Amino acid sequence: MLLHEDRLFPADPGTRKIARSLYEHVNKLPIISPHGHTQASWFAKNEPFPDPATLFVQPDHYIFRMLYSQGVSMDDLGIGQAVIKDPRKVWRLFARHYYLFRGTPTRMWLDYAFQEQFGLREKFSEKTADLYFDTISEKLSSPEYLPRALFDSFNIEVLTTTDPPFDSLEHHKAIRASGWKARILPTFRPDACVDPEFATFKQNIAKMGEMTGEDTTTWKGYLNALMKSRARFKELGCTATDHGHLTAQTADLSEAEAAKLYSAVFAGKADSAQQDLFRAQMLTEMARMSVEDGLVMQIHPGSVRNHNPFVYERYGRDMGCDIPQATNYVHALRPLLNRFGNEKGLTIILFTLDETTYSRELAPLAGHYPCLRLGPSWWFHDSPEGMMRFREQTTETAGFYNTVGFNDDTRAFLSIPARHDVARRIDCAFLARLVAEQRLDEDEAFEVAHDLAYGLVKKAYRL
Amino acid sequence: MLLHEDRLFPADPGTRKIARSLYEHVNKLPIISPHGHTQASWFAKNEPFPDPATLFVQPDHYIFRMLYSQGVSMDDLGIGQAVIKDPRKVWRLFARHYYLFRGTPTRMWLDYAFQEQFGLREKFSEKTADLYFDTISEKLSSPEYLPRALFDSFNIEVLTTTDPPFDSLEHHKAIRASGWKARILPTFRPDACVDPEFATFKQNIAKMGEMTGEDTTTWKGYLNALMKSRARFKELGCTATDHGHLTAQTADLSEAEAAKLYSAVFAGKADSAQQDLFRAQMLTEMARMSVEDGLVMQIHPGSVRNHNPFVYERYGRDMGCDIPQATNYVHALRPLLNRFGNEKGLTIILFTLDETTYSRELAPLAGHYPCLRLGPSWWFHDSPEGMMRFREQTTETAGFYNTVGFNDDTRAFLSIPARHDVARRIDCAFLARLVAEQRLDEDEAFEVAHDLAYGLVKKAYRL
Amino acid sequence: MLLHEDRLFPADPGTRKIARSLYEHVNKLPIISPHGHTQASWFAKNEPFPDPATLFVQPDHYIFRMLYSQGVSMDDLGIGQAVIKDPRKVWRLFARHYYLFRGTPTRMWLDYAFQEQFGLREKFSEKTADLYFDTISEKLSSPEYLPRALFDSFNIEVLTTTDPPFDSLEHHKAIRASGWKARILPTFRPDACVDPEFATFKQNIAKMGEMTGEDTTTWKGYLNALMKSRARFKELGCTATDHGHLTAQTADLSEAEAAKLYSAVFAGKADSAQQDLFRAQMLTEMARMSVEDGLVMQIHPGSVRNHNPFVYERYGRDMGCDIPQATNYVHALRPLLNRFGNEKGLTIILFTLDETTYSRELAPLAGHYPCLRLGPSWWFHDSPEGMMRFREQTTETAGFYNTVGFNDDTRAFLSIPARHDVARRIDCAFLARLVAEQRLDEDEAFEVAHDLAYGLVKKAYRL
Repeated sequence: MLLHEDRLFPADPGTRKIARSLYEHVNKLPIISPHGHTQASWFAKNEPFPDPATLFVQPDHYIFRMLYSQGVSMDDLGIGQAVIKDPRKVWRLFARHYYLFRGTPTRMWLDYAFQEQFGLREKFSEKTADLYFDTISEKLSSPEYLPRALFDSFNIEVLTTTDPPFDSLEHHKAIRASGWKARILPTFRPDACVDPEFATFKQNIAKMGEMTGEDTTTWKGYLNALMKSRARFKELGCTATDHGHLTAQTADLSEAEAAKLYSAVFAGKADSAQQDLFRAQMLTEMARMSVEDGLVMQIHPGSVRNHNPFVYERYGRDMGCDIPQATNYVHALRPLLNRFGNEKGLTIILFTLDETTYSRELAPLAGHYPCLRLGPSWWFHDSPEGMMRFREQTTETAGFYNTVGFNDDTRAFLSIPARHDVARRIDCAFLARLVAEQRLDEDEAFEVAHDLAYGLVKKAYRL
Repeated sequence: MLLHEDRLFPADPGTRKIARSLYEHVNKLPIISPHGHTQASWFAKNEPFPDPATLFVQPDHYIFRMLYSQGVSMDDLGIGQAVIKDPRKVWRLFARHYYLFRGTPTRMWLDYAFQEQFGLREKFSEKTADLYFDTISEKLSSPEYLPRALFDSFNIEVLTTTDPPFDSLEHHKAIRASGWKARILPTFRPDACVDPEFATFKQNIAKMGEMTGEDTTTWKGYLNALMKSRARFKELGCTATDHGHLTAQTADLSEAEAAKLYSAVFAGKADSAQQDLFRAQMLTEMARMSVEDGLVMQIHPGSVRNHNPFVYERYGRDMGCDIPQATNYVHALRPLLNRFGNEKGLTIILFTLDETTYSRELAPLAGHYPCLRLGPSWWFHDSPEGMMRFREQTTETAGFYNTVGFNDDTRAFLSIPARHDVARRIDCAFLARLVAEQRLDEDEAFEVAHDLAYGLVKKAYRL
Repeated sequence: MLLHEDRLFPADPGTRKIARSLYEHVNKLPIISPHGHTQASWFAKNEPFPDPATLFVQPDHYIFRMLYSQGVSMDDLGIGQAVIKDPRKVWRLFARHYYLFRGTPTRMWLDYAFQEQFGLREKFSEKTADLYFDTISEKLSSPEYLPRALFDSFNIEVLTTTDPPFDSLEHHKAIRASGWKARILPTFRPDACVDPEFATFKQNIAKMGEMTGEDTTTWKGYLNALMKSRARFKELGCTATDHGHLTAQTADLSEAEAAKLYSAVFAGKADSAQQDLFRAQMLTEMARMSVEDGLVMQIHPGSVRNHNPFVYERYGRDMGCDIPQATNYVHALRPLLNRFGNEKGLTIILFTLDETTYSRELAPLAGHYPCLRLGPSWWFHDSPEGMMRFREQTTETAGFYNTVGFNDDTRAFLSIPARHDVARRIDCAFLARLVAEQRLDEDEAFEVAHDLAYGLVKKAYRL
């Protein structure tokens, strides 16, 4: 066995017993995955995943960043290659370095997939690399391992993808047209049309203009194009937007100032400070639109993208080279909150890569403003210790009910059940400690466990 | 029962046993409450508290900020109203949302008051709202629930209030004149005369000038007025000052520079940087006065006040809209410390809302400078997890003896025993872990537990 | 007994049992101490340590900073005195205040030395001060307590000192010449020749120029002198450099810019910003040299030196008055990493005094860049809680294998075994929790424990 049935529960026997009974109460609940990076095309086309290396290693920057940090070449891992020439070789290389993942969540997610989805029981290592490769390869070619079959077996109630405003959403439409009843929804992520630092910023806006019939050379046309794009997403069931900015800075310019700023940005004449201001203003504009159309707004700030230019130039974006930075919320969000913070119809979910903000800024903000909710521990902090710190540092000020359940945020489809399982176990472990220390009654803990696993996400994301 | 007798102790049975025996050693010690926001008038007048909503909900921003964050209207809670028209309605609204406080210290403080002070045993909820309202209302009208009777029953050795320099202190005098022997002392809090951003800054200074017969239009007269006001507080037993600044910045200007700065500030011509500098200079002036008159100095920086203008305009200050910000001490305090840091007669107690400074700045500073002591975890961090982080992150560098026991800092009189009880339990839980891990001998832990609950606060605040 | 055999292991009996068996697996492994501040002269001369106060109190700023913080005079402790006039009096003063160290690592290190090295069993206190003084004094005069004999008894495989580029290394040579087989190696620490704020900066460079026959008035000559000095250190077995800068800022100037900057710095005409830039550039130059000569690079940023001018003027540097400050890595290291971050032959070990960077910046950086490794928790954070936070906050992102074992960093020779013992116990306690919570298999935990205590340090420091 790769996994112990009581894993992640506290070691103290009394507390563990409570954790186990809480977990039994929630572990069969459907998964709601309101924020992730799976591809709608997988489910539209429903073609088999090609091989273990392409399935597990290539899309998962958690895996290859660790291997790279220890001197393994990204070329040898097939990163950035359209087709991996020798997937078995990649797989063996991965197996030889599997010990590097000891103590990491990646190890736990992989072991879960290996055991629960492929029935493997021996530890993954250089010795078992071929056994793993052959077992997984064989299963991948069977109908039970096609994307839709896996989806159905994962007990997913809702899965959302993340898509730019100019996405045709054709795969989403194809899924609907196919008659398959899975609830797979797009999320509106306008970064590529809002952040002037995107290499294709201007083309992206032009594309959005064409699709909406708006003159995006003007501020008004640009805003209309965004609003119409949001409406198009909503028609396919979208309930949320997502904003991945470098900082949480917001602004509240007059219409004239904003129009002037857009002209400069659009003309490519905005300097760095103006680009910052434009992104800041756009968060407030997005909040305004959310007040109108009811889309829930997610703000994910604090990641310094493409820190390693060598890797960026050879392999592109999202290659494990994004590093968090210290993030301010209390001053940065003030312009937006001063304008919309007391709107009852608005929901803004805040995320962070800077854990110091949990107790200092995020919990105090979410414990006061009606529009604010706290997203779960995110990215590097989506881990047993990280999730525990999130609960320990936010609950006492913001309570449980200003949080929104779990986001898996994954590009690795097979990790979804594993990640939700870890989140449920840690929440139950946290609750069990509160019960064991008589800080929460057991009957209430059962209710809270259910809310954390299922109720809160559904309500917050309006699903 | 709402409360378990072993609540907040570690779940591991061996450690819990140690915690319990430590707690039994200190739980009957008198309460010293050297920093809080109760009203001397309550004890001077000794009139009954009107009703449960006015007693519990209206003064407690911990309660109504959480309710507001989940969409409950502050008007419906009677906030800011001279008299609550329908207190039972407010109480029911509170009861309906009581589940929001799960896992928060507010829940624990309230349950303590409900059980220990009002003998309630059933859980507070919509169902029991009326039972609670009636039980509490009835008791409040009996002599045992008058402010002085409650005070006597709480085993409080010293209680301090927080008062501006121009306060007449008439209620303090009335208490003394009444012959009642309770030790209730004022604390000198000059913010309203020191921070030019106070709306009534100039009037406050004028008032102080009149009361002291000093010409506060000059720097010298202003300082004299402050010094005389301190002396007036001292006559009524005051032993400490308190300073709630946005940052911990200090300055050490020459007398000529300071006088010139005061002129600008007094004339209302100081820009934002000059106002900052003035506040910084005033901390150093206050330290200088403390060297002279022996008042202990408390510095409480890092709160961004009135973050929500909508609430501020409708309801005023201290309405749950203050949000912490990142705070620097190592550079900010240097001017003051370079001048007075090695003074043996001076005690400065530092507080923070930025927990990252515990191990990085505060413990190293307090573990070196003879004048510095660390205040307990404060405000949002005055909670089981917050207190535990304080001990875990300061003890190894600053030890126990550079800390000063507990502050309840409360506006809610009934929460005083509950808050001190939580602090004592957490300190015993921390000590019990040290003993259980053989990091501290049990006989020494008993001594330390006593010092943390009683000895250190008495010594640090010179009470 | 002063020490319990299971100290520092988790209290839960099941977890403790695992910790104990892991510890038994590693507690006899040789000590590798790759970063410290013992004096090679002690081992070259092999003269007895004079008395307990001179041995324990005088060199250990952890001890006297705490005493000073509670009002004990540094003069009364013999600090900065060539010979302590009345060491017994100092010792008694220390004993009287020993309770201040409750809960600190200093207490644990001292108790270890008292019991394990001097056979003392009664608690150290005012009552036993003379017994301690006499027992220790007597032993210090015996051959078994000469520096070399102690070294041999400590099971140290490698010990490194820290030395400036112009050090003659005569004591290192004398040790070699003596035929004694201990492996004591220098570490190249060029701060005094790289940081223009050193009072003797210019003289230091001149001295280095003389020793290497280079014209250090030119940028090229200066770099050559550094390179030749490194080579001289390498000849005596040095494998690493160490850099103690105020910040982690790096720069990557063109050769012409760098040469011009050096001219300004050398002429004493550089302003504060230019001095910062020079230090930043020198980190990158040092990395470049490390790529060439293979010396491992250690960066120790974030300490504000000599915070207390009163103490600095009377007693000099390293007197317990250095206070950490918030430290940035993600932007600061970028220039260096953009140039050398993907070099396989380069190893840079990063330290911090700002624990907030563990999960936010350091683990993400080390979990990606092949050249980066994380140094252990350092200085104020070299403590049970500090070490545990290090593991809890770095392991999930960087794994164990991007860390480098333990550094004792001590000036107190007798604390070396105690400090390594604490580190091994805490690592075993952490691993035991992972095993008890089924997050790591026990057989893997044994391997990791061995790596953390011995394998990783040897590999990372190329020893």
